Amino acid sequence: MTTFPTRVETLIINARILTMDAAFTEIADGALAIAGGRIAALGPKAAAEGVTADRVIDAKGGLVLPGLINTHCHAAMTLFRGLADDRPLDGFLQTVWAAEAAHVTPETVQAGAALGLAEMALGGVTHVVDMYFHPAATVAAAEKLGLGLTVGPVFIGFDGIDHLPWPERLAFAEDFVTTHRDRPGIDLMLMPHSCYTLDAGKLAEVTAMSGRLGVPIHVHAAEAPSEMALAKEQHGTTPIRVLDQAGMLRPGTLLAHAVHLDDEEIALVAERGAVVSHNPLSNAKLASGTARIKAMRQAGVTLSLGTDGASSGNDLDMWKAMRQAAFMQILATGEPDVLPAREVVAMATLGGAAAIGQSDRTGVLAPGMQADLIVIDMSAPHLIPCFDPYSALVYAAGREDVAHVFARGRHVVDERSLTVPIPDEIATVQSVADAIRKA
Amino acid sequence: MTTFPTRVETLIINARILTMDAAFTEIADGALAIAGGRIAALGPKAAAEGVTADRVIDAKGGLVLPGLINTHCHAAMTLFRGLADDRPLDGFLQTVWAAEAAHVTPETVQAGAALGLAEMALGGVTHVVDMYFHPAATVAAAEKLGLGLTVGPVFIGFDGIDHLPWPERLAFAEDFVTTHRDRPGIDLMLMPHSCYTLDAGKLAEVTAMSGRLGVPIHVHAAEAPSEMALAKEQHGTTPIRVLDQAGMLRPGTLLAHAVHLDDEEIALVAERGAVVSHNPLSNAKLASGTARIKAMRQAGVTLSLGTDGASSGNDLDMWKAMRQAAFMQILATGEPDVLPAREVVAMATLGGAAAIGQSDRTGVLAPGMQADLIVIDMSAPHLIPCFDPYSALVYAAGREDVAHVFARGRHVVDERSLTVPIPDEIATVQSVADAIRKA
Repeated sequence: MTTFPTRVETLIINARILTMDAAFTEIADGALAIAGGRIAALGPKAAAEGVTADRVIDAKGGLVLPGLINTHCHAAMTLFRGLADDRPLDGFLQTVWAAEAAHVTPETVQAGAALGLAEMALGGVTHVVDMYFHPAATVAAAEKLGLGLTVGPVFIGFDGIDHLPWPERLAFAEDFVTTHRDRPGIDLMLMPHSCYTLDAGKLAEVTAMSGRLGVPIHVHAAEAPSEMALAKEQHGTTPIRVLDQAGMLRPGTLLAHAVHLDDEEIALVAERGAVVSHNPLSNAKLASGTARIKAMRQAGVTLSLGTDGASSGNDLDMWKAMRQAAFMQILATGEPDVLPAREVVAMATLGGAAAIGQSDRTGVLAPGMQADLIVIDMSAPHLIPCFDPYSALVYAAGREDVAHVFARGRHVVDERSLTVPIPDEIATVQSVADAIRKA
Repeated sequence: MTTFPTRVETLIINARILTMDAAFTEIADGALAIAGGRIAALGPKAAAEGVTADRVIDAKGGLVLPGLINTHCHAAMTLFRGLADDRPLDGFLQTVWAAEAAHVTPETVQAGAALGLAEMALGGVTHVVDMYFHPAATVAAAEKLGLGLTVGPVFIGFDGIDHLPWPERLAFAEDFVTTHRDRPGIDLMLMPHSCYTLDAGKLAEVTAMSGRLGVPIHVHAAEAPSEMALAKEQHGTTPIRVLDQAGMLRPGTLLAHAVHLDDEEIALVAERGAVVSHNPLSNAKLASGTARIKAMRQAGVTLSLGTDGASSGNDLDMWKAMRQAAFMQILATGEPDVLPAREVVAMATLGGAAAIGQSDRTGVLAPGMQADLIVIDMSAPHLIPCFDPYSALVYAAGREDVAHVFARGRHVVDERSLTVPIPDEIATVQSVADAIRKA
């Protein structure tokens, strides 16, 4: 442990610190100091005696751990949360697509994204990988709230709700990357939608752009039986093999879902160094299936967790995603110990950091790391007693227990409230909902 | 709608009321009055103008619906919450049994049950079916907190942690029923543990006592593959058939779990009029399997929801149980619309009331019904917008959104806080946990 500086901005005391390092190092009665947006020091409470801080947060025996990283989301789709539930996929898509066509603009995306990011911040999320149209609007929302964001241009083979024909889409993408490349707190990925909305030529063009610009790729892959059928029909093979043929399967590529992989494909993903965002809530609700997390873990695939968008989730709750990840593996394998709780927490923290290529910066609590961390209040009845903190986090805790959130060093949730409220954005979302109801 | 009295104890206004009657009647901008522990009236807000109330609760557009009914729980097992997670069933049971043998007394059961019931009350539960040793201690906890409780003597074929040999157990059971028969808010069931901890003769004795005393039966049935194997070994058939041969399968009998039923057994349960408590959280975490809810619904079986105990759950959250019930059916069938959200809410409310034989008293909001109801704050980001209230409840809401709870007419949760706090009981649970950690 490092020595604490004598003066810091924030000092968290009386905390049980889960560092989430590779050894799952834990500090039983600890303190953690934040200065200059970074973790200045952490160690036993005694080591922080005499430290002066602008703000002292008494965790009262609660947990401090890295912020949760949501590696697959469409935050602005909070606009259509629960619009078309309890119906088969076709009806769901028709309803949502019609609403998107009528109501998606940069303004509504910014409001919807702010709502989604606010919800995630309140739930302990400090960094989000977001895929949606009008990405600059999501950037604006993330900057307002203070969350870390991995974002980028979306590629689909038709004009889309942003009305960009392919050549203009390529130009837009290159321009977006150029203008956002050095933006603090913003990380970039190119976001081809999927192998069933892009033909082989267009996929290869995106791969080429990724190489040329040095920006990694985030893509939906092998999500649902319907996608498997489409890939077979359009490309004569499976989504993972299509992506590999397009040169997309390589280190840095983040595959969303990866539900339907055969053994050979799992080995291929591991070999290529691509990483996976597991989205169990969405996979359950849309009947997409259960990802083979056990086999992927055994093959050495880097695994992270996502919520997917609120139109499938229906919320953006990483706690539910953690629990659902565990439950689905247990049910699928019949083994109650198939995915230990601390491995699930690791997927949501250090696994997430690896998935977004930021293991040097976030996902683990250590001196010098960006201050992306959360304080969990452990006083609610549902968290008493606590024999194992990881088990408590996965199987009993929830967003209601998140007391403080620091994202990129900024105090974004203070005593369960957003430090930057978003009443105007909420009003915009409600007015879109009113318009949809009247349509 | 009835006319509102001019003076009531509590008046809830600006509420979207989900009555959960058979037609799913909804009052868009409604008011509900409570007087004498009962629902005095409910109707459009305008109908309540001029009503004087000791307490006016402004729901601010939130939802009012019947309280959730947890039809299978072992509340006192909060004592061992998360004690032995992430290990196979054998290791789990050995650890928990050792802790139970060392630490279960009437005093610790009362503390653990109070903690569990407090957690459930905060999460919108108004009535609990509880199966555990020292049931009088759980009665004391429920009376302190104000929750409705269905409880009764446990029957197992060995001495058990309450150290009652069989003849004394029968005497204890009869005495417990006699002394608790007319206790307000307390309902009775006889609780034979299962067909693998009781032989055919003992099961028949419990059936006979049930008939003689006029008290229905609550029993574990067909929970896990291991139980199926034990039943085959001990009785030569399946748990449902064993219970039927013992005369237990009849109207009023509440079957906990009912995961592994063949078509004939589903038809049998429906024909006999037994009812089912579905416990998806426990079934997932312990790898017990997925109950055939679709087939049971089609056969006309009355379905309700339970959490099971905190040593398997790990918490007692009916919101998670609702969501998990939907997810597991969707994954098992591949049909996203297999169990519509409002049917899930119905399982947790009117289904629960039917399961405990109290449809005339609770589970539906109507004039004259017992005031068992909850107010859901719909202002959190994760509940905006709300296109469908049932979908919001099942897929996005959680215990964090429960603002008020009335159980048996009593205001047990007021602005998210218990009206009867339980610091002493929590201290007792913590001291038991300390002793377990040191052992």
